[in-house]
Amino acid sequence: MATSPHAQDQLANLTIEEKASLTSGQDFWHTQGIDQRVPPIMMTDGPHGLRKQAGETDHLGLNASVPATCFPPAVALASTFDPELARRVGEALGTESAIEDVAVILGPGINIKRSPLCGRNFEYFSEDPIVAGALGTALVQGIQSKGVGASLKHFAANNQETDRMRISSDVDMRTLHEVYMRAFERVVKDAKPWTVMCSYNKINGVYASENPWLLTQVLREEWGFDGLVVSDWGAVNERVPGLAAGMDLEMPASGGATDAEIVAAVSDGSLDPEVLNTAATRVLDLVSRAQNRPEISGPLDVHAHHALAREVAGRSVVLLKNDDDVLPLHPDQTVALIGEFARTPRFQGGGSSHINPTQVDNALDAFTSLKGEAMEFAPGFTFDGSNAEELREEAVALASKQDVAVVFAGLPEAEESEGFDREHIDLPQVQLDLIEAVRAVNEKTVVVLSNGSVVALPFKEEVPAIVEAWLLGQAGGSAIADVLSGTVNPAGRLAETIPLRLEDTPAYGSFPGAHGHVRYAEGIYVGYRWYDFRDIDVAFPFGHGLSYTTFGYGEPNVAVYSDGDLAISLDVTNTGSRDGREVVQVYVGLPDFEVERAPRELAAFAPVDIPAGETRRVELIVRREDLAYWDERVNRFVVEGGTYRIDVGASSRDLRRQVDVEIAGDSVSLPLTLNSSIGDVLANPVVGPVLQKQMAGMMDAAGAAGTEGGASGDGGDAIMNPVAMQRMLADFPIGRLAAFGMGMDKAQLAQLIAAANGE
Amino acid sequence: MATSPHAQDQLANLTIEEKASLTSGQDFWHTQGIDQRVPPIMMTDGPHGLRKQAGETDHLGLNASVPATCFPPAVALASTFDPELARRVGEALGTESAIEDVAVILGPGINIKRSPLCGRNFEYFSEDPIVAGALGTALVQGIQSKGVGASLKHFAANNQETDRMRISSDVDMRTLHEVYMRAFERVVKDAKPWTVMCSYNKINGVYASENPWLLTQVLREEWGFDGLVVSDWGAVNERVPGLAAGMDLEMPASGGATDAEIVAAVSDGSLDPEVLNTAATRVLDLVSRAQNRPEISGPLDVHAHHALAREVAGRSVVLLKNDDDVLPLHPDQTVALIGEFARTPRFQGGGSSHINPTQVDNALDAFTSLKGEAMEFAPGFTFDGSNAEELREEAVALASKQDVAVVFAGLPEAEESEGFDREHIDLPQVQLDLIEAVRAVNEKTVVVLSNGSVVALPFKEEVPAIVEAWLLGQAGGSAIADVLSGTVNPAGRLAETIPLRLEDTPAYGSFPGAHGHVRYAEGIYVGYRWYDFRDIDVAFPFGHGLSYTTFGYGEPNVAVYSDGDLAISLDVTNTGSRDGREVVQVYVGLPDFEVERAPRELAAFAPVDIPAGETRRVELIVRREDLAYWDERVNRFVVEGGTYRIDVGASSRDLRRQVDVEIAGDSVSLPLTLNSSIGDVLANPVVGPVLQKQMAGMMDAAGAAGTEGGASGDGGDAIMNPVAMQRMLADFPIGRLAAFGMGMDKAQLAQLIAAANGE
Repeated sequence: MATSPHAQDQLANLTIEEKASLTSGQDFWHTQGIDQRVPPIMMTDGPHGLRKQAGETDHLGLNASVPATCFPPAVALASTFDPELARRVGEALGTESAIEDVAVILGPGINIKRSPLCGRNFEYFSEDPIVAGALGTALVQGIQSKGVGASLKHFAANNQETDRMRISSDVDMRTLHEVYMRAFERVVKDAKPWTVMCSYNKINGVYASENPWLLTQVLREEWGFDGLVVSDWGAVNERVPGLAAGMDLEMPASGGATDAEIVAAVSDGSLDPEVLNTAATRVLDLVSRAQNRPEISGPLDVHAHHALAREVAGRSVVLLKNDDDVLPLHPDQTVALIGEFARTPRFQGGGSSHINPTQVDNALDAFTSLKGEAMEFAPGFTFDGSNAEELREEAVALASKQDVAVVFAGLPEAEESEGFDREHIDLPQVQLDLIEAVRAVNEKTVVVLSNGSVVALPFKEEVPAIVEAWLLGQAGGSAIADVLSGTVNPAGRLAETIPLRLEDTPAYGSFPGAHGHVRYAEGIYVGYRWYDFRDIDVAFPFGHGLSYTTFGYGEPNVAVYSDGDLAISLDVTNTGSRDGREVVQVYVGLPDFEVERAPRELAAFAPVDIPAGETRRVELIVRREDLAYWDERVNRFVVEGGTYRIDVGASSRDLRRQVDVEIAGDSVSLPLTLNSSIGDVLANPVVGPVLQKQMAGMMDAAGAAGTEGGASGDGGDAIMNPVAMQRMLADFPIGRLAAFGMGMDKAQLAQLIAAANGE
Repeated sequence: MATSPHAQDQLANLTIEEKASLTSGQDFWHTQGIDQRVPPIMMTDGPHGLRKQAGETDHLGLNASVPATCFPPAVALASTFDPELARRVGEALGTESAIEDVAVILGPGINIKRSPLCGRNFEYFSEDPIVAGALGTALVQGIQSKGVGASLKHFAANNQETDRMRISSDVDMRTLHEVYMRAFERVVKDAKPWTVMCSYNKINGVYASENPWLLTQVLREEWGFDGLVVSDWGAVNERVPGLAAGMDLEMPASGGATDAEIVAAVSDGSLDPEVLNTAATRVLDLVSRAQNRPEISGPLDVHAHHALAREVAGRSVVLLKNDDDVLPLHPDQTVALIGEFARTPRFQGGGSSHINPTQVDNALDAFTSLKGEAMEFAPGFTFDGSNAEELREEAVALASKQDVAVVFAGLPEAEESEGFDREHIDLPQVQLDLIEAVRAVNEKTVVVLSNGSVVALPFKEEVPAIVEAWLLGQAGGSAIADVLSGTVNPAGRLAETIPLRLEDTPAYGSFPGAHGHVRYAEGIYVGYRWYDFRDIDVAFPFGHGLSYTTFGYGEPNVAVYSDGDLAISLDVTNTGSRDGREVVQVYVGLPDFEVERAPRELAAFAPVDIPAGETRRVELIVRREDLAYWDERVNRFVVEGGTYRIDVGASSRDLRRQVDVEIAGDSVSLPLTLNSSIGDVLANPVVGPVLQKQMAGMMDAAGAAGTEGGASGDGGDAIMNPVAMQRMLADFPIGRLAAFGMGMDKAQLAQLIAAANGE
């Protein structure tokens, strides 16, 4: 949204005090209104449902919010790998917002899951920026298609809850651009969100809320963002530097205190009035946009939205393991439903995203209604671990008498939430004991998991089937029944690796930091990039997920478009007897790299529905920009030239087809200097031959002596073998040759360099 | 060495040009002389022998050096874990230097082995700073006891050969202080080396040779160094900033070019003349010290020094594995010696440390002389891999006919050297094939390794005995025979972990960097700290090494000295039937830490000779400073208070006894600010209670609502569970409370903070 003429007109009629007042909230959820001229607009929490506090408002959520549909949180939605579905969820969120006269819904949250310990992972999509970017884009487009604004959050490098309002995320520039800002870049460019929410934390020592590099240079100048930057609630540290950095709107209200600071700064000349004009105009633009929303009136069709929530939840379920086709359940099998989660589902996470749902389905009721009869059920455990032995015995007794035992395990609400990070990835011991005990009496034990972030699965080899059901939103109970019964053929895929142990995870030991700093030690090796790169075994790899049918992959064809993007097409065949969906994944790698990179990175994916026995042509696009690395020498993305390996497969570790493609690199032209290496100078077409000649005598002498030394191995030989000598000389800074008296002094060398640079 | 009056007098009589001339070399190996007033002094390469070029001099070593004793390089010497032995080697080096009229020998090199790939690892001691520091100290003390100066190198963070003259080692301050500068600190403080050699590389973007933080703030002001800083040969980038930073002496000669730059800078006022005076005085001091050397005259007792080289080499051998007591060899066994290394030993590394030895022992001759008869020998392979099949068949035929087969494997000279880094840790395939083939025909196959840095041991489970013999110096062949025959009972210990795979190593993927930067991603987790911390299996752990006898450990007692150092004493018993040496190791850890640290760190060690069946009391001192971590908040080492775990054992993974000790922490007093957390303010004795009262109402409300929410789990509940609420509030910056309208505005909060700070 470029600045509208309307906003410019409005601005001209405002005093400095009025302009300043626009840059902070009127109350917890509204922008500042100015009499008849500028109405306040409302923002509410998201991102997977509307949390609109109707009466008294407060940030702690002490007062209830109006009922809204609780769609599957991002952890689940991401597992669909289905942007089209995310777009439909976005449309539904937009509709619910519009009906409630909410101008901006605070989401999506697209931060990268750096560690499974982050308490807010359930609100985030993935460990991979392409997945987070693609689904975030679709969600924003869906929301905004209804004339409601999205707020892309939390910008940026906000990957933990511990000390989140003060911690400095210390991250190198390459990692920031390739991993932590990459999904933001994609969504900003592709979906143009109305607002971006800056995060609480610092980045390399500077608060996101007062970081001109982040909010202006990167976000606006490099990515072309033209919306409004809003603070996370309470993220403002110093208001005036924040405004100057590009943090337009402080939320919530500051009681006028920070507005006064801005007015004072303009008055004493320490703040350019144009900075205030710009921020105020952006607020006016946002208000103007909100006022132009097309009419969408209520009441909300709660049933339609619940149905959508159920459809998405069904698509989100990941079938991790299914030995001997234990699933789907056969209609004639008797089934024990075990675990408190079957009766009391955990379907959303704690914190600002916590929805007051229109209804809640539980699996026990869903199965009962599906079967048309009462189900055999035992709670098995309590959330607080009390009464463990008695409940376990009851459950085991039940399990021993049924054909199949389905254990609903997971993380109780007290174990994960916005506001704190976990310290381990274990399920409660009472539940692990229960699973073991049930399995001991029933070979057909199915474990269904409810958790917002990954947990260790020590029972992985023991039970024949495991279903990762995440937090599925209000219709999750029904969706689980749909999948277990076979009504829905599962197609969810892991958007985050399930590791074997916490010790194996990339950020282990540098999460969550201490003393105000967290060092992103693992760098670009986040998620599967780490496990693949270090060749570490995992419980279930990124991209993994089974179906009740099977798929075969044909040979891929690759074409390069004139703009550099790659098109990959192949046939995929449903080789089983059920209709199903495959999520085709394309990974790229550059085995013979100059700059270290992960063995493979997801570059494209496509969910494709294929009826039993049929074949579909799948086409995927790999953007050229997704082949690039961030080059700190020139501060931009650069594609390294070479032979790229394209792997097509069903997961990051189930690669079915491979094809190589030659890619021309971007040219990076760096002038030679006296600190350039001899190798670099020798490679220069202008002066290389001159240097070659100059050095020939010396090289020959060294080579000959070295060879002799290598062969004899006794005391009279040269001190270095020829390989060492050659490599050392190649890296040698040309300017230092002067000190070694090798025929050229510094002035002559400077002349050589100038000639190389065409000076 | 504080500045001597003599040097001050000399300085007064020098012109600016003469002073400047002192700050660079006269030729490759001498300082600048000034007519009759200041004689030149000679420096030569070390560190495990003298490399003195007698005739024409050059840095590439094209001209032979005078014969000298090649003692075991640092990789071997470190394995003795014996500072007393290192001191004797130092004394011998000092004697050889003195006889040759060499004033300063360029060593020891005490850089930490960050990656097994570093080509110069053979010249360095350990992956652990305590080992490197203790042995480096002893070596310097030994050298300097003869009136010859040592040059502690390469300062600092010079941990690779790739692009070594330009690379920037990008390392956080904590890691620099705790790992990469720690051994330097210890040696500087304990041994007062005459000179410190600055390294080629940059540290965080600044050349070591022009880094005032490194050469002046840390080295002189914090550590109290009062010697001279000399550049590594050719390490000077810009001379004038280097001089200002504290880089006193440039080597080798610059042909007067940089002296002229210094004179010009003094003349135009851009360089303080006192900087030049200081550097020139330090050169004069060094010269003066060299002139005062006590008379030590030749000729060198080559036999005595060779005998010392043999003793040290025998102590350096690490017996990695010895199933069924295959070793020592029995006198009545027939033995096949296999492998070219038995005949052509690799006993030193390539590069500036390459010695022209006084004699070279090989194992084949040593065994022959030991047995008094010709040995059965087959070369098995060539260093360049040629003729593999034929040589292997010959060796296998020989092995099949003898009782025991000893295979001498290792890295040929072409595979490792100063000047380049390895790209893998594998032995040549021809040698691996040979080992497998020999083992197939002889169950009693012993592998003896010659290598400067660790190699993978894929045959580890297959062969009954493995001997790590590193590069053992000129007497290595005899020493190997001594150990294999049982004349010497091995007591060497691994000063570096032998990993299972390169992918497991800490720096994997961030070594050796690219584009002029290498990021020390693994931070403080170097060597065994990494493997222990991430619980990664290794081939052989740090500190490991077997003996032909066995040892039992008594219960340790711990006492705390008044200065905070810990004394640990325990009884160790030789429970076998041979006299032997145990290396008792003390590791410390702080399981319940506030600041992340490795599970255990070596804090003390002691080699102790114990006759068969006897018991010795061993006393070890753990310095309080070695419990500390580097606190970036206050830029100093700080001991965290708590219950420290003291493990006493025979290796880092063979811990025999454990005892806990309470340690009072250092006080770190940080003033409260508006960015202090609520938790920190509540903990303040002055204002904590005030805030507590203020917040009580809010906390109660939140707590109550949260409890309700946690229990019910349905839509009308509070959005956050009480655990999350409490943790979130504890981390909340107190200043932000104002924005949330919680009863105190910014002025009131500022008042509270001022009161807390006693203002």
